[in-house]
Amino acid sequence: MRYLSAEDIKRVLTMRDAIEEDKKALKLYSEGKADIPLRTNLSVEGYGQGLYMPGSTSGNEPTLGLKIVAVYPDNPKLGLPSVPATMITQDAKTGIVNAILDGTYLTQLRTGAVQGAATDLLAKEDAKTALLIGTGGQALTQLEAMLTVRDLNLVYIFDRNREKADDFCKKAQKEFVDKFDSKFVAVDDPNEVVAKVDIITSVTTAKSATFDGELVQPGTHINGVGAYTPDMCEIPVSALKKADKIIFDTLDGVLAEAGDIIQPLEKALIKKTDFDGELGQLVNKSIKGRKSDSDITIFKTVGTAVLDIIVADKIVKQASLQNIGTILN
Amino acid sequence: MRYLSAEDIKRVLTMRDAIEEDKKALKLYSEGKADIPLRTNLSVEGYGQGLYMPGSTSGNEPTLGLKIVAVYPDNPKLGLPSVPATMITQDAKTGIVNAILDGTYLTQLRTGAVQGAATDLLAKEDAKTALLIGTGGQALTQLEAMLTVRDLNLVYIFDRNREKADDFCKKAQKEFVDKFDSKFVAVDDPNEVVAKVDIITSVTTAKSATFDGELVQPGTHINGVGAYTPDMCEIPVSALKKADKIIFDTLDGVLAEAGDIIQPLEKALIKKTDFDGELGQLVNKSIKGRKSDSDITIFKTVGTAVLDIIVADKIVKQASLQNIGTILN
Repeated sequence: MRYLSAEDIKRVLTMRDAIEEDKKALKLYSEGKADIPLRTNLSVEGYGQGLYMPGSTSGNEPTLGLKIVAVYPDNPKLGLPSVPATMITQDAKTGIVNAILDGTYLTQLRTGAVQGAATDLLAKEDAKTALLIGTGGQALTQLEAMLTVRDLNLVYIFDRNREKADDFCKKAQKEFVDKFDSKFVAVDDPNEVVAKVDIITSVTTAKSATFDGELVQPGTHINGVGAYTPDMCEIPVSALKKADKIIFDTLDGVLAEAGDIIQPLEKALIKKTDFDGELGQLVNKSIKGRKSDSDITIFKTVGTAVLDIIVADKIVKQASLQNIGTILN
Repeated sequence: MRYLSAEDIKRVLTMRDAIEEDKKALKLYSEGKADIPLRTNLSVEGYGQGLYMPGSTSGNEPTLGLKIVAVYPDNPKLGLPSVPATMITQDAKTGIVNAILDGTYLTQLRTGAVQGAATDLLAKEDAKTALLIGTGGQALTQLEAMLTVRDLNLVYIFDRNREKADDFCKKAQKEFVDKFDSKFVAVDDPNEVVAKVDIITSVTTAKSATFDGELVQPGTHINGVGAYTPDMCEIPVSALKKADKIIFDTLDGVLAEAGDIIQPLEKALIKKTDFDGELGQLVNKSIKGRKSDSDITIFKTVGTAVLDIIVADKIVKQASLQNIGTILN
């Protein structure tokens, strides 16, 4: 058994690798080769909740594992993360637990990567500018994913708290100075730049649209990454209505959890036939993506355990080859 | 986070400690203070199955954790265990995973201990002899549990394979020479000694009764520890019929899984009103156990995740106090 910290994970899997693994994961999912049961929720009265998300995939290289996520809103008062996570992988051919991974970084990595996969498959090839809305815990890997799949020279950064946006720009500059030739510019209002950018990625817990969809220009690709409950919403209905393609990570997940899709469906502002399919179907080419540089494309993700399992399995295999991590006997 | 091997676990928790923890666990269970959802089963086609068993308990010292068990019948061909297990514990007040434990030894320990708890609460105080039927992976802790709660001077050991019984006697002698003054004697037929012993513990995967119930004498206490599926059976119906007390670890578990109870119920050879309750009710004294030295008492266990969670939580707390295990950062 092997323990892999966030640093260990960073050493063995790049964002580009993770993007390819997420594509593979969603392809397996869309082809019915992933078994992802409903998660089990356990409440600890007065404290929080444990969520247990096992899953497996079949095929030549089967995988098996479980992510444990805890939701403890008061943890930050103790200087602890409010949503700590741990990933457990098993050797699917023997059932034996072969690794324990830092689940918090794994989640950031695979969530960035799934947007990277969508942006890779849906955004204009020559996209040069982007807007990132939200600078929370998931934002840095979201930025990295966009930079990885497109040669962006300018990314605007928005946060409701301008100081946080400025700090994030500095952090991003430092983190990516050796990897990417991009400028990061904080803005006071996302709508200042919505009409100017090729890619918009929103990663917030907002309860209403985070930008004005009327301003979205032909050719734009939009990623909705936050809004993972029915009462949350990031993507404006006006953008959904003028989109040429609307693609989800998983149809079941988005229709059960994503407020920005559920709410307009309930109000009959959009209909299910407006949706074009799953990202895994784009990967295996059973559906088509962008048809021209003027299409507006939208990707909505709420996440699925298959992303954790496939990305973690690859990390563990790489760590084993490179002899990285703490060995436990 | 801390990793605890089988050796680490042995250093921090004695069988006597584990017996007390199992009593506490079943008391919580019987009082409705344990939340043990149905386990999630995942199949890996052509290889095996992963079983995920989360659980929590409430109260002043809440607990939270998960046992992962894999069932891979072909593993022994690779020199690996057919049912590998791993335990994960969380700090119930923060949700953070605080330890990974060897689940195989934990299972042996808590399964021995639950029989020890029952034997402690149900067998005659002055029991001196016992019969152990079955010498597989769970047998050594079963023997240790009986030796821990009663001052036995002689334990007969039976296995269908006499050589295995002889080997087990030697192993037990070596393991317990410093702890207990008991003789271990292999027998060719359990029925040679059924009428002579105070305690009978059967721990096999038999499909029919492992001894003749007609021979059971007044005063005997019987533990049925194997037989964890509806098609398995160890306890003879004749013993169930003449028992004065029949106690289960959990009523739900036994009625769903234990063939030696389900089969005679289905044939109307016994009825549900013959059952006296749960071990946790004996612990909290809401029901009574043996009334006299001539009562025949029976305990049937199929196990429950609450045993894993409470015993593991205690192990982790002790390991933390004594600074034992491998620390992972």
